[in-house]
Amino acid sequence: MEFHDFSTLAATARLHDLAVNPYDLTRPAALNPGRIGSYRSSACGFDLLYAAQRLDDQVLAALQDLADEAGLVDQFLAMKRGAVMNRIQGYESENRQVLHTACRDIFSSTPLSPEATCQAKEQLAALRRFLADLEQGRIVNHRGESFTTMVQVGIGGSDLGPRALYLALKRYRLPGRSARFLSNVDPDDAVAVLADLDLSRTLINVVSKSGSTLETLTNERLVRSALERAGLDPARHLVSVTGAGSPMDDPRRYLASFHMFDYIGGRYSATSMVGGVTLGFALGHDGFVEILRGAHAMDTAAEERDIRGNVPLLMALIGIWNHNFLGHVTLAVLPYSQALLRFPAHLQQCDMESNGKSVTRGGHRVGYLTGPVVWGEPGTNGQHAFYQLLHQGTTVVPVEFIGFRQSQYGEDLVVSGTTSQEKLVANMLAQSLGLARGRNHENPNQRFAGNRPNSILIADRLTPYSMGALLALYENKIAFQGFTWNINSFDQEGVQLGKILAGRLLEQLAAEKEGKTGPLAGESAELNLLRAAGGIG
Amino acid sequence: MEFHDFSTLAATARLHDLAVNPYDLTRPAALNPGRIGSYRSSACGFDLLYAAQRLDDQVLAALQDLADEAGLVDQFLAMKRGAVMNRIQGYESENRQVLHTACRDIFSSTPLSPEATCQAKEQLAALRRFLADLEQGRIVNHRGESFTTMVQVGIGGSDLGPRALYLALKRYRLPGRSARFLSNVDPDDAVAVLADLDLSRTLINVVSKSGSTLETLTNERLVRSALERAGLDPARHLVSVTGAGSPMDDPRRYLASFHMFDYIGGRYSATSMVGGVTLGFALGHDGFVEILRGAHAMDTAAEERDIRGNVPLLMALIGIWNHNFLGHVTLAVLPYSQALLRFPAHLQQCDMESNGKSVTRGGHRVGYLTGPVVWGEPGTNGQHAFYQLLHQGTTVVPVEFIGFRQSQYGEDLVVSGTTSQEKLVANMLAQSLGLARGRNHENPNQRFAGNRPNSILIADRLTPYSMGALLALYENKIAFQGFTWNINSFDQEGVQLGKILAGRLLEQLAAEKEGKTGPLAGESAELNLLRAAGGIG
Repeated sequence: MEFHDFSTLAATARLHDLAVNPYDLTRPAALNPGRIGSYRSSACGFDLLYAAQRLDDQVLAALQDLADEAGLVDQFLAMKRGAVMNRIQGYESENRQVLHTACRDIFSSTPLSPEATCQAKEQLAALRRFLADLEQGRIVNHRGESFTTMVQVGIGGSDLGPRALYLALKRYRLPGRSARFLSNVDPDDAVAVLADLDLSRTLINVVSKSGSTLETLTNERLVRSALERAGLDPARHLVSVTGAGSPMDDPRRYLASFHMFDYIGGRYSATSMVGGVTLGFALGHDGFVEILRGAHAMDTAAEERDIRGNVPLLMALIGIWNHNFLGHVTLAVLPYSQALLRFPAHLQQCDMESNGKSVTRGGHRVGYLTGPVVWGEPGTNGQHAFYQLLHQGTTVVPVEFIGFRQSQYGEDLVVSGTTSQEKLVANMLAQSLGLARGRNHENPNQRFAGNRPNSILIADRLTPYSMGALLALYENKIAFQGFTWNINSFDQEGVQLGKILAGRLLEQLAAEKEGKTGPLAGESAELNLLRAAGGIG
Repeated sequence: MEFHDFSTLAATARLHDLAVNPYDLTRPAALNPGRIGSYRSSACGFDLLYAAQRLDDQVLAALQDLADEAGLVDQFLAMKRGAVMNRIQGYESENRQVLHTACRDIFSSTPLSPEATCQAKEQLAALRRFLADLEQGRIVNHRGESFTTMVQVGIGGSDLGPRALYLALKRYRLPGRSARFLSNVDPDDAVAVLADLDLSRTLINVVSKSGSTLETLTNERLVRSALERAGLDPARHLVSVTGAGSPMDDPRRYLASFHMFDYIGGRYSATSMVGGVTLGFALGHDGFVEILRGAHAMDTAAEERDIRGNVPLLMALIGIWNHNFLGHVTLAVLPYSQALLRFPAHLQQCDMESNGKSVTRGGHRVGYLTGPVVWGEPGTNGQHAFYQLLHQGTTVVPVEFIGFRQSQYGEDLVVSGTTSQEKLVANMLAQSLGLARGRNHENPNQRFAGNRPNSILIADRLTPYSMGALLALYENKIAFQGFTWNINSFDQEGVQLGKILAGRLLEQLAAEKEGKTGPLAGESAELNLLRAAGGIG
């Protein structure tokens, strides 16, 4: 498969021309009924309303050309079929397939990557047996009691996605089941997470592909020692999710081990066993399968070549329009749902680790912007915090709103004629309009410039199915953007340098404690920064 | 007091010249021992290490000139002395004093704003009596039991600061005391916060200056109805923090009411009763006073005219250097402390609501960038998430690291010769160096461009005192930046438009439910967006 450089495409040139004079959302009737009605696409229960973006039919046509010219859907299909998309041509790189979609392709009789889907099914079957053993009292603690809590120990992709999904779906927990997450090497994190926990009824789920992640190993040691201090046998309380054959794939030390595979990157792993074990424990096997079902539906929707019929692709292209052509370097993702409070943190990893790159898949330095800075907090909270800058600041921040027509619990109250859920959604719509249209006013401090581009994603309710669809929507959006920029969205070489430098500092500290000479030279910045920071510990 | 426009200052022109060729952190010995040792300032137990910024002595001298020319310390002193800093000259505006520092000026025998400090002392005395009544069993529930939990109901400034501080200082809670926070109008938030809570032993602290904040009133109604359903008398469980004479200042409906004043903005109110009641309940009166003591110390340190002896001012000016002269529009605040997990969310409000402005204090449109987009998550977690973009992305993000030499609990474990706390801090230092120096490599995908500016703030331990100092450090930094840009950092007109639009949509929904005609016209964007979004609820 041949890849094209983003800057050489005919559609790129055309879009630069169109960006000189983007659609003006502040003109009278700029947001007319026809536009609002037609700038709307749907997939898997989500409606995308994008009338409040600074684009018109010409821009959409050019974005369609961009998608076609860059072969975005072909690349997506190639990815799903097992092409080695994780590579840099001509240089040493990970050289791996990218098959997180295969975990969800279990509903099809003819999966696109049969081998990977077969492995996913095996893991899912093992998980189902494990959960049934818990349910039916075959796996119990030393007093014969059932387990009520699972603590997932992992960091990065082994933490953010599963945590975001668990918080989003707490409402659907099995009775008496809950989960916690331990990630940071900060020792205070472990103390806080383990506080007021009945360890005797707790399972610890340690997640690390290599079985050698510093933070996770350290926290596993902390947890094991806490179990031992409580007179409990760690081998009866720990399970692992890891690569086959890793040091953590060891039945003597873990009650059960589930496998993750090289062809699924950490930040795309929430629908593999990395998310499956804890989400399955909390929501039940069927709940987890519903997440997969929603994700699979969105993976299928992302195969459509017409951008207006492909929500992930359309969102990817609108993002590129805002970023590369209108010059906005950040993106705010603002869910009007408190349950999605950690979804933006997951997206920060998924997006910024995927597309925060400077080299093409051909090993050349890019000559254009790649991934944006992604951030966000739930509304309406954000309205009382940073929205001031969104409306009146000097930096324009494109916004993706996410909302639901119904609440999860359905416990609501009518105040002044409307429910809280209505207030929540009405506020989201109002913000979209306010950002787009702005407002003129004789008092300059009460003027709003408008033309702040934004979209709304709305579905009926946040459920396991819609959460799975939303997760896959963003995963696929991010992949489409990486394909457009011709970068490798699936490696993360940028995390290596810090690890090496930290390792050297820690060697120095360990040596000094033993009265030995460390590896750092007296003139080195490392040693001098360590001194300037004062003693640690 | 006369204010100068940022773009007309001689120092501004000089800094633009210097920015053509900023200090190159990637040259050999760019981070030499002399630089690391001398680019260091201290205040109230915090050391600021700024060798990894792209500046030199010439830039520092020009920044000193900027501070002098713009009269930054004079403006700060005027603010503390009660000048009407919250105004726009020649236009209708809030026209208020800005006196959050007066809440902390209680340790001085000659406070700068005696009246405001006197009011703060009165409130603090009332809080002390209230806490003593709780402690000594004079305020109890209907069964004569003590209260164990306080739920703070508030949003924006009545939520983010107090919540961030509570999470930061949980380690110092009084035995048996805890707090929760309810903010979002999302009805699911209330269900989740009130779940598994013993309401009979819970106090509800409702915080709203006007007594009319939509989200807070709605949530108060939800909580009152939950109390009633549990057979409890709301008047025995609710306290309020509000403006004197507001609808919430009512002894028939609240066990106690504490006052907040017009001269303290929401986002600067954590050290007033807005934070005081819940923090005092959780940490005790003395714990809250320690926060005030740390904040007061930092307020005093911020009066120093030499920028190298004034950490808040120096951080403000370095931020302006990165933002206005080097062109970086975002700022990442990355605490290497899990306890500070919500401090960046507080700063998002404090900074972006203060300085996300486009109009000068003279009512003119600014011709330069004002406040940056602020975001962040704790390290080392972020290293496994978005640091890829920080190191190798196409958008340069300046970073402020925050760390502590010791953990809060002191429960730690030596793995491979070092403690978790040592690993935490070593990672922070390593990231600072890696971002600054970068790395050359024959594999283009393993190259790091470097020159990513960053500072490190480090103190011994996160305590009530150091938390107070850190809070005031950022409050004062933000104020100094607003003074420099000649904007009003103390109003928030940008939140009004969304409120008006949401109100209209809600009127429409309420009318439609009653079968009446709502206020929205058929062709209006409001009504059409509402239709396009589908039914709510």
